[in-house]
Amino acid sequence: MESFRPESIPNPAVRRLSLYLRQLEGFGRKGRRTISSKQLGESLRLTDAQVRKDLAYFGQFGHPGIGYRVDDLIVQLRKILGTDRTWNVLLVGAGNLGRALSAYRGFASKGFQVIAVFDIDATKVGHKLGEFTVQHLDEISKAVEQQQARLAILAVPADNAQDVADQLISAGIRGILNFAPVSLTVPKGVAFNTVDVAVQLEQLAFQVTFLE
Amino acid sequence: MESFRPESIPNPAVRRLSLYLRQLEGFGRKGRRTISSKQLGESLRLTDAQVRKDLAYFGQFGHPGIGYRVDDLIVQLRKILGTDRTWNVLLVGAGNLGRALSAYRGFASKGFQVIAVFDIDATKVGHKLGEFTVQHLDEISKAVEQQQARLAILAVPADNAQDVADQLISAGIRGILNFAPVSLTVPKGVAFNTVDVAVQLEQLAFQVTFLE
Repeated sequence: MESFRPESIPNPAVRRLSLYLRQLEGFGRKGRRTISSKQLGESLRLTDAQVRKDLAYFGQFGHPGIGYRVDDLIVQLRKILGTDRTWNVLLVGAGNLGRALSAYRGFASKGFQVIAVFDIDATKVGHKLGEFTVQHLDEISKAVEQQQARLAILAVPADNAQDVADQLISAGIRGILNFAPVSLTVPKGVAFNTVDVAVQLEQLAFQVTFLE
Repeated sequence: MESFRPESIPNPAVRRLSLYLRQLEGFGRKGRRTISSKQLGESLRLTDAQVRKDLAYFGQFGHPGIGYRVDDLIVQLRKILGTDRTWNVLLVGAGNLGRALSAYRGFASKGFQVIAVFDIDATKVGHKLGEFTVQHLDEISKAVEQQQARLAILAVPADNAQDVADQLISAGIRGILNFAPVSLTVPKGVAFNTVDVAVQLEQLAFQVTFLE
């Protein structure tokens, strides 16, 4: 596992690794012990060749005549993705979306734990958001340091997103999941993904128009 | 514009079309009149060749010595993506995430309008969620028919997602944006995207681990 060179691995392969893990966890819950690349691929509308190629970037996981051992592969993929340990996650933005994300129960089982919520709005700071007391954004450096947080979720308005991102990065955050409908500029060495719900709907609109 | 064959266009190109549109709207707001493929690409960390190749799937938009006219290209891309008109969107799931999505103000300017909210929970049906009165899921066929809705957002627990998706599809929904952390099985002719926040965090965890 130590031998693969992550910088040479295409992003789509890493993205599919998460999907394989999700499917394997599902198969595991249903009691499946082994699975072939064909079956794993079919569950995601991918070819078996794609599955084998993606996994081959990270190691040799299959067993001749058996396929993959579901539990083994889950453990290996979690190790590769870094989710065999728990990541402390800071949440910035105590609006409706922040509330939804802070209450989301699905993170913990995937290796993520929201540990604190921040905002700059004086009507929110000091008040409860679910189980959290909202802290002022200026407190975030302390939280990053004390809790060794490297990941943050940004659920703030588009106009504030870049400023807040800059503040997070100078506080030591290295990965940002951005829900604001705006592209961020971040320095090298910082990772970010944007979840733009309108973009997702646009993709569907395009497909629906031409599927009809 | 009628001459391109959507089935031959790779999904990533369609996805980037949305991102180009987003950037162009940003440039337009800042008063930019024209833009080169290089500038548009740089704003998204893409090469100018990639920009030109993606746009070439859909037509000829550039002007020699000028580049792209920002306003023109916005209009063209909206036409291609189908967002030059407003899409009525049904929202299923009146929990925290449903509340956030129902209150999200960014949809309308992108051509989407949430017109109704549904749930099966008796403690929610008939009650207000923001400006909406939550309706029972059994009412959804009527809404699809009367409002000509083709798109739905699924913000329900993972265990219910497939059942609800089946119900939406038989009611006439043709595109589903799924927030449940589960892969859906849908018939041919129905489009869906899944936004799995834990998958997004995993991708960041992987990158942060190997960027350090």
